[in-house]
Amino acid sequence: MFTLDSNDNVPLYQQLFLQIRAQILSGKLPAHLKLPSVRDLSLELETSRNTVDGAYQELYAEGYIYSKPRSGYFVSDLDQEKSPLSLPRQSGQRGPRPNAPDAYRFDFHPARLDPESFPLVLWRRCLLSSLRTGPRELSQYSDPQGEWELRCNIQKYLERSRGVRCEPDQIVICAGLQNSLDIVAPLIKDHHESVAVENPGYHLPRDVFRNHRFNVIPIDVDACGLNLDALRSSPGTVAYITPSHQMPLGHVMPVANRLKLVAWAKEGGKLILEDDYDSELRYQGRPISSLQGLWSQGNIVYLGTFSKIFSPALRLSYMVLPRPLLAAYRQLFRNYLAPVSLVEQKTMSLFMEQGHWEQHVRRTRIFYKKKHDLMLQAIERHFGRNSSVVGQGAGLHLVLQLMEKSLDEATIVDRARQKGIRLLPFSDFYAVKRPGPINLLIGFGGIPAKEIPQGIEQLSQVCA
Amino acid sequence: MFTLDSNDNVPLYQQLFLQIRAQILSGKLPAHLKLPSVRDLSLELETSRNTVDGAYQELYAEGYIYSKPRSGYFVSDLDQEKSPLSLPRQSGQRGPRPNAPDAYRFDFHPARLDPESFPLVLWRRCLLSSLRTGPRELSQYSDPQGEWELRCNIQKYLERSRGVRCEPDQIVICAGLQNSLDIVAPLIKDHHESVAVENPGYHLPRDVFRNHRFNVIPIDVDACGLNLDALRSSPGTVAYITPSHQMPLGHVMPVANRLKLVAWAKEGGKLILEDDYDSELRYQGRPISSLQGLWSQGNIVYLGTFSKIFSPALRLSYMVLPRPLLAAYRQLFRNYLAPVSLVEQKTMSLFMEQGHWEQHVRRTRIFYKKKHDLMLQAIERHFGRNSSVVGQGAGLHLVLQLMEKSLDEATIVDRARQKGIRLLPFSDFYAVKRPGPINLLIGFGGIPAKEIPQGIEQLSQVCA
Repeated sequence: MFTLDSNDNVPLYQQLFLQIRAQILSGKLPAHLKLPSVRDLSLELETSRNTVDGAYQELYAEGYIYSKPRSGYFVSDLDQEKSPLSLPRQSGQRGPRPNAPDAYRFDFHPARLDPESFPLVLWRRCLLSSLRTGPRELSQYSDPQGEWELRCNIQKYLERSRGVRCEPDQIVICAGLQNSLDIVAPLIKDHHESVAVENPGYHLPRDVFRNHRFNVIPIDVDACGLNLDALRSSPGTVAYITPSHQMPLGHVMPVANRLKLVAWAKEGGKLILEDDYDSELRYQGRPISSLQGLWSQGNIVYLGTFSKIFSPALRLSYMVLPRPLLAAYRQLFRNYLAPVSLVEQKTMSLFMEQGHWEQHVRRTRIFYKKKHDLMLQAIERHFGRNSSVVGQGAGLHLVLQLMEKSLDEATIVDRARQKGIRLLPFSDFYAVKRPGPINLLIGFGGIPAKEIPQGIEQLSQVCA
Repeated sequence: MFTLDSNDNVPLYQQLFLQIRAQILSGKLPAHLKLPSVRDLSLELETSRNTVDGAYQELYAEGYIYSKPRSGYFVSDLDQEKSPLSLPRQSGQRGPRPNAPDAYRFDFHPARLDPESFPLVLWRRCLLSSLRTGPRELSQYSDPQGEWELRCNIQKYLERSRGVRCEPDQIVICAGLQNSLDIVAPLIKDHHESVAVENPGYHLPRDVFRNHRFNVIPIDVDACGLNLDALRSSPGTVAYITPSHQMPLGHVMPVANRLKLVAWAKEGGKLILEDDYDSELRYQGRPISSLQGLWSQGNIVYLGTFSKIFSPALRLSYMVLPRPLLAAYRQLFRNYLAPVSLVEQKTMSLFMEQGHWEQHVRRTRIFYKKKHDLMLQAIERHFGRNSSVVGQGAGLHLVLQLMEKSLDEATIVDRARQKGIRLLPFSDFYAVKRPGPINLLIGFGGIPAKEIPQGIEQLSQVCA
């Protein structure tokens, strides 16, 4: 009737439970049938009474059997005029592990940092400190908007280094840009239906707003950033922009355009989403001040992250909400819980408190400037006059524009891959493709400095 | 003209930058005015040339001034026919720190764990191990769907202890229930517009689906869980349910009803969202098997979490997507990034791998059973015949129903607060209030075992 296998990983009582359940569900054991007593079945199966009793208890708890005082257990009537249930499949079948990413000799992906730049020793020390005060806090939900101390430290940093004017109660700690935009979208849904985005531009915001059923309107980018005439004549009433370092082209929006953008927003309650993702990394002059600082009482959501200069794997970011949206946030998200681990928030707060953060920013800027300069030299040497570079001087990537168009982008990316060179296709950033030179997105965050000359040399051969 | 204060925290060059910028924005320094030379201004302000040069560099980088070769810097034309910009406010004003939560002598909040139950030493050990392999991985974005090893460990655990049948590629690692539902909502938006939820029931899913512009339809709950006749006659085509331990009433949905629910879902592509948030914590018999295991190839999203038995502060949860939704997920979320820290994912994976997880589950169950039993004894002693208890035998709370209605809930909660007793109002769980006895939600997770008798005694005085 039933077979128990003591070599199986599944406990005996559960094997028995599963087998009896299967027979009940298939109808083999009909409703109201009396089950053998615990004693009888344990003798029959040559197993302990505990095994049988455990199986019966579980069947009983889940309603497959019922009991009558002093007469034992009976099969429940499960009202099976419905189609029979599919029984559990055999376990042990596993889907294959997804393919590991290809190993590349030269990785020019723009969203890589250099492992050498991560301050592991200091971070670990702060992590252990923040765990020490742990169990009590770990046993509760933390502040949904983020730890107060971390928000205060971010506020001070933003004011000092980014010219952002806000108070800590306007800051929301998030798990990356998508999380911030997932919060913003419901806040603005009643008043806005079309979001203007940069073209070319970062694809993630396009996807998030589409997932929230907004119209996404690509607006072309020129050397001054978003084309403001195109914006003005579009139906977009929300603009997602990267004014301090346009992603991917690297342009800085000049002040005159910033003022025009603010003027646009002032007409009729429009909203600016300022993504300031990597502005710490400027290699010439100081970082560009934020747009938010120009109009701190206005309709600007300021979005910042620890992903670009610290670690993309920790998923720690923040946004500054203008007061009217803050009120809506407190209403619509009042029952939400914090999206980021308390331990990591406390660790980052300590890291900032102790001055490690600003030191890290300075060190990192110097570190990547060296790689940036090496990259420019290597491009000059190996690509020379057949190319030009745009978006240099900042961030973790630049754009190499090829004058000769004998090869198309797909061919170049594919040939590069075959030679162990990873390129993220620039065309991924277009919502609407525009004619123009071939653009190669050259990230220098992940590739070690000493590999840069050789990597660029090999890339130049691919493009030749 | 400008005043620099060397005692200020703001660097001198930035003080100067801010003052010049303010005068440019206000129009005091008109367009095309020539600025004094670096040398002259530094003499005038009795400061170093570096200070002036730094300020000019920043003004230049941000486009407030332009340069002419061999003649110096000039104020840019910022096209200021628009309304003047509001200038940055004085800094130093801080919003007040939000009020710290009241300190309660007896905390009966149902979403608290006992600090003593957190395995700090083991967790720290796993955390340090997972950091050791760190910098390379910390410098990249991790798998958007979650670490493969963690998904494999969760799959094994779910199969063994919850009867969930799935493959690791169906598991998505999330930062809590709200994050899971934020992913599910766009996946189903094209085919569904009304989500049925339990009434009374957990408020978070109601809010998430409303934020995604679904109709939320409260369906009454009876002793068998969701009322299936009401569900069937409602326009809801998605049902969010807590079948193994109804939140907040604590009922277990019997198998006959589970089969009916599955039959409902099979008619015309309906969808079940099974939230299995605390089913590890059953104090009588084994945990109830999941609904998903009854219909593993069907339209069920299984939602699980580490918040209830491990830590709510870490924000670590998971869901199992049925294959059709998995395909949609890969399409709509292809550009999204992982929402949970890689370090915590790796730490939890290691914790499970080394067998600590199942040991923790067993220990925790025994730990809370003791508190649960103490709670029942205290209620029996101090409330006796004037009350009954529902939803006992599982989880971290029970519901105390008062027969006498001399006081209303608000009065009881308020009086309790005045006596240092924290109660989460049961009425918060109603989307639509129903008549019935006064229900008090009595959480026993956070309150120390030795405080339970006195806490219940004092609560009984409040209710008398």
